[in-house]
Amino acid sequence: MGLVVVGSIALDYIETPFDKLGDALGGSTTFISLAASYFTPNVQIVGIVGDDLSEEHVKMLEDHNIDLEGLEIVKGGKTFRYGCRYQFDLNVRDSLYTELNIFEKFNPVLSERQKKSSFAVLGNIDPDLQLCVLDQLENPRFVVADTMNFWMERKLNELHEVLKRVNLLVINDSEARQLSNEHNLFKAANKIRGMGPEYLIIKKGEHGALLFGDEIIFSAPAYPLEDIFDPTGAGDAFAGGLTSYLHDTMDLSFENLKRAVVYGSTMASFCVEKFSTKGIEGLNKLQIHDRFLEFRELSKFTDHE
Amino acid sequence: MGLVVVGSIALDYIETPFDKLGDALGGSTTFISLAASYFTPNVQIVGIVGDDLSEEHVKMLEDHNIDLEGLEIVKGGKTFRYGCRYQFDLNVRDSLYTELNIFEKFNPVLSERQKKSSFAVLGNIDPDLQLCVLDQLENPRFVVADTMNFWMERKLNELHEVLKRVNLLVINDSEARQLSNEHNLFKAANKIRGMGPEYLIIKKGEHGALLFGDEIIFSAPAYPLEDIFDPTGAGDAFAGGLTSYLHDTMDLSFENLKRAVVYGSTMASFCVEKFSTKGIEGLNKLQIHDRFLEFRELSKFTDHE
Repeated sequence: MGLVVVGSIALDYIETPFDKLGDALGGSTTFISLAASYFTPNVQIVGIVGDDLSEEHVKMLEDHNIDLEGLEIVKGGKTFRYGCRYQFDLNVRDSLYTELNIFEKFNPVLSERQKKSSFAVLGNIDPDLQLCVLDQLENPRFVVADTMNFWMERKLNELHEVLKRVNLLVINDSEARQLSNEHNLFKAANKIRGMGPEYLIIKKGEHGALLFGDEIIFSAPAYPLEDIFDPTGAGDAFAGGLTSYLHDTMDLSFENLKRAVVYGSTMASFCVEKFSTKGIEGLNKLQIHDRFLEFRELSKFTDHE
Repeated sequence: MGLVVVGSIALDYIETPFDKLGDALGGSTTFISLAASYFTPNVQIVGIVGDDLSEEHVKMLEDHNIDLEGLEIVKGGKTFRYGCRYQFDLNVRDSLYTELNIFEKFNPVLSERQKKSSFAVLGNIDPDLQLCVLDQLENPRFVVADTMNFWMERKLNELHEVLKRVNLLVINDSEARQLSNEHNLFKAANKIRGMGPEYLIIKKGEHGALLFGDEIIFSAPAYPLEDIFDPTGAGDAFAGGLTSYLHDTMDLSFENLKRAVVYGSTMASFCVEKFSTKGIEGLNKLQIHDRFLEFRELSKFTDHE
């Protein structure tokens, strides 16, 4: 039992055409665990930060029943800091700066309890770190991994090792094309599943998401958002909602994976509606389920009687 | 009763990375009426060609029970000819030549029977010609129109007149963005529906299609095609399948419009699997319904019990 999340925790500077915000709590672990907190109590995180993380941030995570036992706070250390600016249509993000700081020394060591986790999410970090976590998990039932172009260009061999050992890879369409060297997403998916993961999800932003299994595909719609305030963390909120829903239901059938994709999409849609983590703070189950039902209405059709 | 189709009939030269073909029967009317022929017998077309159209082409249309009474064949005239080359990923089409020939003189005159048509599809032609057809229709129940960037740049006022008088506009995502001057497709849809049409469909190619009604949206998936041989006519096949399904069922509820979108997507998916019109020739009802059901499987999910 248990869901463990390993990734980055950062203090972000985010600038969009609408607003800007500094010292915003970010990083993949933050978004994954917050989204997961609505389906799984005591999500366990493994991460490292400096003592510049505010008490408010720590309290916010605790308020969501996230288990911070595995959060190492280094006295005198500085948290990973990342700054970015989104262009006018929010589709392009320009990095302003990346200061790894204490994160450069991140060496994820899982507690005895964490090693026994049945579900794990490996956020978008160095494949070597992802492998280090996989080595420590004793008998995981379902492991979800994220990655990005950066690692495909620098650590492709290590990434391939990760792919052989995870159940589900979650990437976006441009990453899928790069990893497979195929433009057609359906061909790309076949190739990537051939690299190891039983399941693949390709996130397509405003066009929804595709889930690929063995000779079976599910196409999830995108939520019709007229205004996106901040895309930061949407992919992580997706992975967190998805994995924690699976953990909560303990059902790994393709039918349930479909629902998990829609719950992931639901959390991502809440995430982008507000700045930083604000969109996925303090939600309730009813709000989440209502939006899940909206997704169903959006894509449901019947055969003519 | 009755479905009338007005657009272009052309002889195409098509080159893709896989093959090339000259003197291929093309034009919006051809693809619309062929796709429509599976749902509506005696689809009536209004068009003009030269006597360079082969008997084989005419016979193929007749074999699909398309009513050619309104097809004017001009002795000694040359049919509209269009040549294009698709780039490697088939997303970009370069025009090689456009010879309007006899089509330059096209003045659609509807027969008494055609004027009484309850359903009409106005293919992507000069908005002045679309208005000319609208003026002749006596009491249409449902008119579907297509258009393109070309007319937005040259005949925007006339296009706006068309929009005020049609029930459904079918365009692609880049056209929707251009017509509305909005990047976000949901905002774009609101603006375009404000220009007149009660319903709007935005076709997104490999990402499916969106149907917009009054405060209601339907998101249709794309069929998972690994190989697209020739995208020519896909949008027309979509409009033809969609409108003829509505004509066949005589049900204009939003629930039925959703099904019509999926039947349109079904015909478009057959269309792109083969060169020119080959993909939508000689199909049968069972094949079409089976693919409709595949679309349903692709997007169906249920709430957890």
